[in-house]
Amino acid sequence: MKFVHTMFITGILGTAVLSMSSVQGDPLPYKPPIPADNPQTVAKIELGKTLFFDPRLSSTGTVSCNSCHNVMAGGEDNRPNSMGVHGKTGGRSAPTVWNSAFLTVQFWDGRAPSLEAQAKGPVTNPIEMGMKDWDTVIQRLEKISGYEPLFQAAFSGPNPITADNAAKAIAAYERTLITHGSPYDRFQRGEETALTEQQVEGLETFIKIGCFACHYGPNFSGPSMQNQMGKGWFQKFPTIPGSPYETQYKLLDDKGRYEVTGEEMDKHVWRVPTLRNVALTAPYFHNGAVPTLEEAVRVMAKTQLGRDLKDSDVQNLVAFLNALTGEFPKQTMPLLPATPGKSMTAE
Amino acid sequence: MKFVHTMFITGILGTAVLSMSSVQGDPLPYKPPIPADNPQTVAKIELGKTLFFDPRLSSTGTVSCNSCHNVMAGGEDNRPNSMGVHGKTGGRSAPTVWNSAFLTVQFWDGRAPSLEAQAKGPVTNPIEMGMKDWDTVIQRLEKISGYEPLFQAAFSGPNPITADNAAKAIAAYERTLITHGSPYDRFQRGEETALTEQQVEGLETFIKIGCFACHYGPNFSGPSMQNQMGKGWFQKFPTIPGSPYETQYKLLDDKGRYEVTGEEMDKHVWRVPTLRNVALTAPYFHNGAVPTLEEAVRVMAKTQLGRDLKDSDVQNLVAFLNALTGEFPKQTMPLLPATPGKSMTAE
Repeated sequence: MKFVHTMFITGILGTAVLSMSSVQGDPLPYKPPIPADNPQTVAKIELGKTLFFDPRLSSTGTVSCNSCHNVMAGGEDNRPNSMGVHGKTGGRSAPTVWNSAFLTVQFWDGRAPSLEAQAKGPVTNPIEMGMKDWDTVIQRLEKISGYEPLFQAAFSGPNPITADNAAKAIAAYERTLITHGSPYDRFQRGEETALTEQQVEGLETFIKIGCFACHYGPNFSGPSMQNQMGKGWFQKFPTIPGSPYETQYKLLDDKGRYEVTGEEMDKHVWRVPTLRNVALTAPYFHNGAVPTLEEAVRVMAKTQLGRDLKDSDVQNLVAFLNALTGEFPKQTMPLLPATPGKSMTAE
Repeated sequence: MKFVHTMFITGILGTAVLSMSSVQGDPLPYKPPIPADNPQTVAKIELGKTLFFDPRLSSTGTVSCNSCHNVMAGGEDNRPNSMGVHGKTGGRSAPTVWNSAFLTVQFWDGRAPSLEAQAKGPVTNPIEMGMKDWDTVIQRLEKISGYEPLFQAAFSGPNPITADNAAKAIAAYERTLITHGSPYDRFQRGEETALTEQQVEGLETFIKIGCFACHYGPNFSGPSMQNQMGKGWFQKFPTIPGSPYETQYKLLDDKGRYEVTGEEMDKHVWRVPTLRNVALTAPYFHNGAVPTLEEAVRVMAKTQLGRDLKDSDVQNLVAFLNALTGEFPKQTMPLLPATPGKSMTAE
């Protein structure tokens, strides 16, 4: 946690320009936290990838996990809100699946304590994948003969085709979706020229004005250590009320975590999202109402820090945020198991 | 054309059981016909794959070519009809993209003489990908900075981002989507044990009762030689009127090629589809009304050949058709070029 430490010192001293050494933070770890009850195996990851890309996990056979969390496109769908079965849309924007293994809780409102718990949600959400219930999902998977050996290889014991195992496999695949090698990571691993001067200035501004207070840690989403998993890292948004952005971007229409807990203190409270690959995940915020990263930076500065940023600060911050775009490992496409001679979806 | 030749002789002699040598046909060629004005290049194929998987070619940013022609799932969507933008559906079932390079015309009604011409259709179809027109598509591609170098690498000359070039690239990628190594192909290349006894019986029945009259050639879709490209191979369906299947499966609701030509003789005339990988492409026929391969075989025998098949014949034919399932080459996923910090789709 050198990063936070340095920053607090910086804040106290009010230093305007930081030296290279003082912006030292943590690069993304090579491995994410792995739950003790769901170890990574090749067979499980392969099954998980297959399920992740299989549109038959939706009632219409048209929506897979990848439809909204598109691993080929920054890990989400670049839409204000996602489009589920029958063209239905909800009020929230799909978060990226890349590096989600480093988030301590899942969903915008943090209602899932793990990737395993998250994986079960969208499948039976009527406006997302629209399956009636997980029993129906399992019945469908059981009818696809090619899934049996994949589940057998990934999980021991009789009747391995279960909702828990499907969720475990999907989570195991998602834990492989990590982007290393961003300019920021290379910088933090000692390659001092990996960031441009403007990006370093942006990083300094990011620290100085206080963005780091929430977006810290190697995933820029708060604590991501093993012992924090499931606990979450939340912030109120907007923190400072009364900005014109509230009505312009309908920031108060959704009560966030309050919808889960019913606690007054959770009104408009949200999980702090990662900033990794943020340049690839427009439009922004829980409702996807803000179309550009520039504007997102202005909105954050105003609503969270009470600042009206200069244009140059916005440009520098955006340049820095672009330095958080990592390298996306090449992946092979799964071959979805068939149901020879039969169709599966009726809707 | 050994295959057809053998069959005519067989038909004349009325031989009940064919020897191994008499069922010799053509395996799938290793390379499909390549148009002189669109040679295959690595750069073009890579661009084509990227476009094929890019949902930003649809108005909503949710439907890519792959959504309905899913290369991970037999090359189509296993739905009676496909689901385009906003959950819209049409009346026809998506044909498989695998081995489409061997078809002499494209679409169920054969209205496109080439894969290049086909590729332009769905993008601007209001119930498929829903783009206003190709100018709008090109404007969107021009705004995605990462596409410029991909088009530059694939096509020489200034302003390479055009509808024609996009279509050429998609067609070039599709010409790589070929499944070799089916049991039938291995059998035809000399591996006599590649087919089970039941599959050989099915092949013999296939020839004897006349399925081959339309479904002949290495792609089981009629002539596929270079000099036939764009000409098409059509058949009336149902050929023999009055079967109960007509109303049961609404076979006469769609007038087929007549909708393109307006010619009386083209009423209920359709392009003969490939039978390769047919076991993976349920439900069946132009309207996807028939849910199983068994039933599809019965319907074909009745409506095209005037036969009520015995159960054993149906089982043998289905076994043979399963022997037309090929090997799907492993593919890497493309990384879709980004528009850093900006969202592209408004709908």
